[in-house]
Amino acid sequence: MQVRIYYEDTDSGGIVYHTNYIKYCERARSEEFFKRGMMPFGEDKSGFVVKSIRADFIGTAKLGDMLEVTTAKIAQKGASLTLLQEIFKEGQKVFGMEVLLAYIVEGRPKRIPEELRDIL
Amino acid sequence: MQVRIYYEDTDSGGIVYHTNYIKYCERARSEEFFKRGMMPFGEDKSGFVVKSIRADFIGTAKLGDMLEVTTAKIAQKGASLTLLQEIFKEGQKVFGMEVLLAYIVEGRPKRIPEELRDIL
Amino acid sequence: MQVRIYYEDTDSGGIVYHTNYIKYCERARSEEFFKRGMMPFGEDKSGFVVKSIRADFIGTAKLGDMLEVTTAKIAQKGASLTLLQEIFKEGQKVFGMEVLLAYIVEGRPKRIPEELRDIL
Amino acid sequence: MQVRIYYEDTDSGGIVYHTNYIKYCERARSEEFFKRGMMPFGEDKSGFVVKSIRADFIGTAKLGDMLEVTTAKIAQKGASLTLLQEIFKEGQKVFGMEVLLAYIVEGRPKRIPEELRDIL
Repeated sequence: MQVRIYYEDTDSGGIVYHTNYIKYCERARSEEFFKRGMMPFGEDKSGFVVKSIRADFIGTAKLGDMLEVTTAKIAQKGASLTLLQEIFKEGQKVFGMEVLLAYIVEGRPKRIPEELRDIL
Repeated sequence: MQVRIYYEDTDSGGIVYHTNYIKYCERARSEEFFKRGMMPFGEDKSGFVVKSIRADFIGTAKLGDMLEVTTAKIAQKGASLTLLQEIFKEGQKVFGMEVLLAYIVEGRPKRIPEELRDIL
Repeated sequence: MQVRIYYEDTDSGGIVYHTNYIKYCERARSEEFFKRGMMPFGEDKSGFVVKSIRADFIGTAKLGDMLEVTTAKIAQKGASLTLLQEIFKEGQKVFGMEVLLAYIVEGRPKRIPEELRDIL
Repeated sequence: MQVRIYYEDTDSGGIVYHTNYIKYCERARSEEFFKRGMMPFGEDKSGFVVKSIRADFIGTAKLGDMLEVTTAKIAQKGASLTLLQEIFKEGQKVFGMEVLLAYIVEGRPKRIPEELRDIL
């Protein structure tokens, strides 16, 4: 997924505000649902929630840059999965994170349904 | 209400991103409810929604500034009210807006209840 | 310009947070520069700044919606211009604003250069 | 440092958008400078930048909540330091992260000056 950097994404340091990279990763996960005509949550208040992240801030991006967000699954258990999400600017990695997502239904961990296994 | 300017509030122009002043005004309206131990919406999905704003961007603010937001009611009808909200930095006005708020219940305009008249 | 609505754009009211529509309009103005390979500011600290807006909040949008932002010039003077920016969801207008932009160089109003006249 | 949760902090899931906790931690670090009448960066483009974070999302917060952010130094080297930052809601931890900060001057790692050692 591509992300354009607008004024709102930057801060007075002249570059993208650090937590915004983590937001772009969330956008990329949600977009996987949207582009299939699905929503990232179910009517029974089910969905994936972020349990933990390990993030490395490697480079910087600035106003007008076009970034590329990639998402790959690196581990899957019954009720959770771990993704590697990376952000590139002209082929150079500026950010990377491992994110552990738990599948919950009404606040409780549940087994990830078959039909959602391959979306993320 | 006082608002401290953090990195997230600024943009690469080195000053506060323009729409953020409008967010600080919303914070000030919500805070009037919070400080009375109330919520800005009711259980019947009632509450005030922004219908229109007229805003003037007069000055600038930057990282670390402490701003003051003032709120005054300038008009009231049965189902709506108009506020003047202004933002000051060391006594100088940097932003001002008139905001028209409508009271709605489940998406429809309703008469503002007696007990909510004097909060905003 | 199209704008996808992500979690970060919504609030606990279940819809897009009101000031975000004003941010989407700024994205659309900046994108006019980016798509021409230009930046919305010059090296001499020149650029357009928002002086005032009149905005009407007409409808709502929610998670996953794809919005369309349109921009039209409705007035132009030597050192300022007024745009009409509207946002549509499936053909229905959800937001409209008139925005007055001043052209400034190092903080002072200046005549808009010929080459920037037709970008916005 | 205390943080009030406003509409802008929440998302359509009804709770605080996950990356915002990381922003509150940045606010708390900057506030340590502001309250001493200092800025978090120097005139020679020096300052602390986030190199990596390990964050655990433990609980949730919602509109109107007042959160408490705590900051403790857990490691210090010549040119970097590691902080433990935690966020509490009515005494219950909702978020915790370890953040590695590097001190840089004009983009290059430098030894942390004596006078900045005890601020974070």
